[in-house]
Amino acid sequence: MEQERETLKTWKERVGLELDRVMAFWTDHSHDQEHGGFLTCLSHDGKVYDDLKYVWLQGRQVWTYCRLYRKIERFRRPELLAAAKAGGDFLLHHALVTPPEKKCAFVLTRDGRPIKVQRTIFSECFYTMAMNELWRVTGQAHYQTEAVEMMEQLVYWVRVDPSGLGRPRLLGDPGAEPMAIPMMLLCLVEQLGEGDTELTARYAQLGDWCAARILQHVQRDGTAVLENVAEDGRELAGCLGRHQNPGHALEAGWFLLRHAARKGDNKLRTLVVDKFLLQPFRSGWDPDHGGLFSFQDIDGLCPTQLEWAMKLWWPHCEAMVAFLMGYSETGEPALLHLFCQVAEYTFCQFRDPEHGEWFGYLNREGKVALTIKGGPFKGCFHVPRCLAMCEEMLDALLVALAPCPAPQAPGAASARGDAE
Amino acid sequence: MEQERETLKTWKERVGLELDRVMAFWTDHSHDQEHGGFLTCLSHDGKVYDDLKYVWLQGRQVWTYCRLYRKIERFRRPELLAAAKAGGDFLLHHALVTPPEKKCAFVLTRDGRPIKVQRTIFSECFYTMAMNELWRVTGQAHYQTEAVEMMEQLVYWVRVDPSGLGRPRLLGDPGAEPMAIPMMLLCLVEQLGEGDTELTARYAQLGDWCAARILQHVQRDGTAVLENVAEDGRELAGCLGRHQNPGHALEAGWFLLRHAARKGDNKLRTLVVDKFLLQPFRSGWDPDHGGLFSFQDIDGLCPTQLEWAMKLWWPHCEAMVAFLMGYSETGEPALLHLFCQVAEYTFCQFRDPEHGEWFGYLNREGKVALTIKGGPFKGCFHVPRCLAMCEEMLDALLVALAPCPAPQAPGAASARGDAE
Repeated sequence: MEQERETLKTWKERVGLELDRVMAFWTDHSHDQEHGGFLTCLSHDGKVYDDLKYVWLQGRQVWTYCRLYRKIERFRRPELLAAAKAGGDFLLHHALVTPPEKKCAFVLTRDGRPIKVQRTIFSECFYTMAMNELWRVTGQAHYQTEAVEMMEQLVYWVRVDPSGLGRPRLLGDPGAEPMAIPMMLLCLVEQLGEGDTELTARYAQLGDWCAARILQHVQRDGTAVLENVAEDGRELAGCLGRHQNPGHALEAGWFLLRHAARKGDNKLRTLVVDKFLLQPFRSGWDPDHGGLFSFQDIDGLCPTQLEWAMKLWWPHCEAMVAFLMGYSETGEPALLHLFCQVAEYTFCQFRDPEHGEWFGYLNREGKVALTIKGGPFKGCFHVPRCLAMCEEMLDALLVALAPCPAPQAPGAASARGDAE
Repeated sequence: MEQERETLKTWKERVGLELDRVMAFWTDHSHDQEHGGFLTCLSHDGKVYDDLKYVWLQGRQVWTYCRLYRKIERFRRPELLAAAKAGGDFLLHHALVTPPEKKCAFVLTRDGRPIKVQRTIFSECFYTMAMNELWRVTGQAHYQTEAVEMMEQLVYWVRVDPSGLGRPRLLGDPGAEPMAIPMMLLCLVEQLGEGDTELTARYAQLGDWCAARILQHVQRDGTAVLENVAEDGRELAGCLGRHQNPGHALEAGWFLLRHAARKGDNKLRTLVVDKFLLQPFRSGWDPDHGGLFSFQDIDGLCPTQLEWAMKLWWPHCEAMVAFLMGYSETGEPALLHLFCQVAEYTFCQFRDPEHGEWFGYLNREGKVALTIKGGPFKGCFHVPRCLAMCEEMLDALLVALAPCPAPQAPGAASARGDAE
């Protein structure tokens, strides 16, 4: 017990300090004072090396600022809110390519002109998260209107008719469902439903559908999570079918843990810990150099993605959240141990003690391969979301260990509800 | 002179033997006896790990088989021709997504159903090369009809109206021209024009246009080749504008050397050797570990492509061809020296003495990162094209050194025409 308390206390301090340093990097370097929104293509020292604006990264940064503003007192700062609103307004003015049609651009010029459109739903998902979170901190209804309308569009694309995304369905199309799709929708169900009984009710069936679809990705008699399966749950042939993404499995794991907690479904919780936390870690952790592989082939063949053995920042963020959440929910010491193992590797390899924020891309051996702090796929999102969630969970765990004089932290009441 | 002869002789032997081993790998493992065409997703030992058929790789393998059959006597084997024809017929039946529209699929199922279409011209370019080369070895006119019709379509997309490719031109589009576009067209101009006075005349102006457009990529007062420039030759902003691809520069280099030779333009030849051979090598060769970087940023910033520092097989193939061609055309000893440097690294790092064919993807330090021999981007093309061209050039150089009793090799007459 004393050792556990020490571990939790040490990590709470490290995580909290790191969150401050990471957020300082983004507030110091990324605000576009001229056009609103964020410059996210940042070198190791925060210099802007490109001024493209990736819509999903704009949405993610708005979300992160609002979420921290709303949940963590020391981030309730006017300049954070102002930047978030400027980012949200930039999205409102520029993200949609041909309004009122709901399709978002993938990337914009600094002043908001569309450069590329992706035939997927991800820009729109993060647009929705940004708008909903902006509504929560500002109370301005038009943000929520945008969020809910976009959510309806997303559900239509995923469950009714994807043809509006612009990708023709061809004769040889294997009908693959990437796990990312139900994962993202489940994330949005939680986002929109928080403290909102009407939307919780509206999306309850959708949440169950997402969870069921994610669970269809557990394959090979329950021994593996596969990233792509047929819509009816069959395994697909070839590389596509054998593809594994340990970071996605772990991220889906904590999305499902939240879903199980909301539903009070302990059987699901147990399944998720086994299939989405422990198994992906066992197969995805590099026994030679540490760190999580980016991609694997379930049959042990060589993946065709050039970066398969590189260590990327975000799977490590997701693993930290997943293991600490698993521990908070079950009290299982092995999960705390895994949290510490991943967090130790992550803090040691990805952190930049000199300029703040984390490097994103290490080679297999753990050496920095790309020195950028932000780029087309990395912005202000995975790292602060991970650190803020871990800080909140560690707080709650510490409060639960010593319930008497410790200061009350948000969310503490629910932590380790049935694990004492 | 004696040392040069020894060098040339040694490499001619190594290259010739290697060509035989590489071709044996593909003829042993890649023929699809059931549907025609080629299975190109091959593991290190030749096992098929996926049965997808990438249209550009099908076209490239047809081209390679026909070219070797036509140019090198020991490859004039009926089974090579039969496989090439089966590949060509597979393309004729399945490559076009909605015939008679000329757009090709990017990837097909094993039995030829389309899975994906790319909004670019590259599948169609290699379709054209395959059809033209098939016509040359079979004499069957319908192949040439296909080649010429597709060429007309390509020229229309590139020079008149790209909208048929399906990519909407958006307001923020920087109007970038990737060097790959005029490079590929120049390659086709040479392909179709070989020994064909009518098509040579028809595409003469196009060839000059391609060369001029490639030369527009020489930027920064002639000190660098940039992969993307505006259509009017201005440098573009951001990562896109600063992007360098040393392998492409070297490949464009030998395409231009051929163009200069056809036109007898010695001034162009001198320029090309400097700007497209020596400079890309100087900036692109890794001084620490050897090998050519995949991508660089002209300002020395970190590229955003995860594989930027990996060593890929194809730039090394292109470098070998470029330097040996440069040497053949100029007699400049420095170019032979560079050929040897690149060839030594390449044979040492990429070859697989156990199973044949080359590994495609090494990490920065030169260790094999992906063990596959074929995949979505690697098939039977760059390696055998390089080896066959080098064998032919080395042959011709040796004949030119000792013109009297040596056996006559194809193409020998033209080698080092003015370099003695």
